[in-house]
Amino acid sequence: MIYLDHAATTPVRAEVLAAMLPFFSENYANASSGYAAARIGRTAIDAARGEVAKVIGAKKSEIYFTSGGSESDNWALLGAASGRPERKHIITTRIEHHAVLHACQALERRGYEITYLDVDRLGRVSPNDFERAIRPDTLLASVMLANNEVGTIEPIAQLSKIAHAYGVLMHTDAVQAVGHIPVDVQMLDVDLLSISAHKFGGPKGCGALYVRDGVRIDNLIYGGAQERSLRAGTENVPAIVGMGKAVSLAATHMVQSAAHVSALRDVLEAELVNLGGIRVNGDCGNRLPGHLHVSIEGANTSILLMRLDMAGIAVSAGSACSSGAAERSHVIEAMGISGEIQADIRFSLGEQNTIEEMAAVVECMRQILKR
Amino acid sequence: MIYLDHAATTPVRAEVLAAMLPFFSENYANASSGYAAARIGRTAIDAARGEVAKVIGAKKSEIYFTSGGSESDNWALLGAASGRPERKHIITTRIEHHAVLHACQALERRGYEITYLDVDRLGRVSPNDFERAIRPDTLLASVMLANNEVGTIEPIAQLSKIAHAYGVLMHTDAVQAVGHIPVDVQMLDVDLLSISAHKFGGPKGCGALYVRDGVRIDNLIYGGAQERSLRAGTENVPAIVGMGKAVSLAATHMVQSAAHVSALRDVLEAELVNLGGIRVNGDCGNRLPGHLHVSIEGANTSILLMRLDMAGIAVSAGSACSSGAAERSHVIEAMGISGEIQADIRFSLGEQNTIEEMAAVVECMRQILKR
Repeated sequence: MIYLDHAATTPVRAEVLAAMLPFFSENYANASSGYAAARIGRTAIDAARGEVAKVIGAKKSEIYFTSGGSESDNWALLGAASGRPERKHIITTRIEHHAVLHACQALERRGYEITYLDVDRLGRVSPNDFERAIRPDTLLASVMLANNEVGTIEPIAQLSKIAHAYGVLMHTDAVQAVGHIPVDVQMLDVDLLSISAHKFGGPKGCGALYVRDGVRIDNLIYGGAQERSLRAGTENVPAIVGMGKAVSLAATHMVQSAAHVSALRDVLEAELVNLGGIRVNGDCGNRLPGHLHVSIEGANTSILLMRLDMAGIAVSAGSACSSGAAERSHVIEAMGISGEIQADIRFSLGEQNTIEEMAAVVECMRQILKR
Repeated sequence: MIYLDHAATTPVRAEVLAAMLPFFSENYANASSGYAAARIGRTAIDAARGEVAKVIGAKKSEIYFTSGGSESDNWALLGAASGRPERKHIITTRIEHHAVLHACQALERRGYEITYLDVDRLGRVSPNDFERAIRPDTLLASVMLANNEVGTIEPIAQLSKIAHAYGVLMHTDAVQAVGHIPVDVQMLDVDLLSISAHKFGGPKGCGALYVRDGVRIDNLIYGGAQERSLRAGTENVPAIVGMGKAVSLAATHMVQSAAHVSALRDVLEAELVNLGGIRVNGDCGNRLPGHLHVSIEGANTSILLMRLDMAGIAVSAGSACSSGAAERSHVIEAMGISGEIQADIRFSLGEQNTIEEMAAVVECMRQILKR
């Protein structure tokens, strides 16, 4: 298989799995228990929290482990809403992940007003539009750091500065960014930031929410005193340990890995464009290193994906979370790319990909498209 | 180490870990993706869903995977509340897990009224009290199937019958029960039932909520279309596979395992009572097979736990989720066991425990208590 869907998920790195293994059947104690055996897990969680904090420039006390990116996004939005109930307006964009958009819709049903900002044809949010959307009752703005479909990187630091000038909390869904491009909560100046471990070689079922010191959010999951009483549930020690290891390895390898995947991506992009009738979507000058999103004239997405699958090439049209949906992606629609009969394909590359794989993909596309 | 805290968590069974392993770095695809590689995970999730459903007598379509017992409890309560907003009264008990109690308190802050039922000295909820608490605006009742501290099994089938006679939804937190005693959603007649994998040899970070067909609950976590659009987030394939394997093994071994642990427990209980000044809490005639909760006159819980820990014996005073709290457990308070200076210890046994370990624990207790 040629796997080019790293934005959907990544294989767990061998070193990460090795770090996790002792915590399933050997050091299995409940990390919140009082005895010596439990301290092994507690210490490991503490170290993992330190790794996550270090990579994004946060304090350890600002990192809360969750079950993944969707939980983190939901918690940021719903938790901030409960924590500051007098403000009933939220700003987001039309290109967010459904974890943000559908949480916003839930808030609408609870009486909140949401402004969904448009983006330009490259998928960029306008800081001017952002500022104009702010109202006296605006609680929070949620804008993703990098789009999961087209890879466009948003001007979060600039948006945060505007938000804070008006006393508005700033959340960013950094699920696609962390581990792939430098992410620093101080430079971004955000109050809340979502992370997912399986997007950078960590395990599924584990994520984190960064909550800046002093920012008050309510629980999404109530119960025991875990995560400083803000996220209940027995700590998932193996996964947390894996997330710590994965984020640390991703940070170490980031420069080298980004250079590798962006070089391959650029080759793939140039050769696909050469086939003719293919346009590249997203902000090519400011994009995640492994992302390549294309629209292909005269092709059908489902058929193209099926043919690629039969050839052993794993790619997607967009988010795995909404695959199965027949409609065109809301991101592509929001970017104003519509009208003609065309297929959308997202290639998202990882460290393991090779130049030979790129050539094989181009050849396969040439055959399928008969170009 | 002599591990007698299986109610806090259990080691992952070797067969369970073996079943999980291929899904970390080999069959790692996002189960919601469209290509062939993703179908391996999707098929495995489907099989695991079938195992969970089978063990509790449910349909596959009634099982929703979550990140664990706390999420399942929160989802049941908060989701049912959103799903039926015209009813603002909930019934629960004073001995529930904090995942239920604290979710109830969150609902109180949102304008709900909660009735917290008392229990008797054995920890039993009275069906008469339960019926008297029902009001025309009662939405839901949440009563645990078996108490996590003292092991008392509640008359859920009887309570469900009453609840349904008044159109009240019935939820049970079966986190301590599933895998240890027979649990059948048809016999219990419940609408919602919470499960946690790590309580029966499965991995941490994975649980399920049974939602009876036709019962409408709203999401706790919004986003992608996973879990029939009711629980968003990339499926945690290894953990779900592990949960399926673990529940199936626990069901297969249940009779034998229950006989083994209850025989050991009865020996431990008899010999501890022989030491003098020790009373057994909970409903000895109707209790989880591995649970033994005792109050010890003239002893201090923290010191006793520390001495046992130094001797290599891992036990707890009650829930790990609230360990660190200096106060006596809310369960013990609710049972009216109070007043005298005494220590509370929960022993919870597992399949791996031996008669030699029981003798060692009794001897250690004799030395610590100087009896």
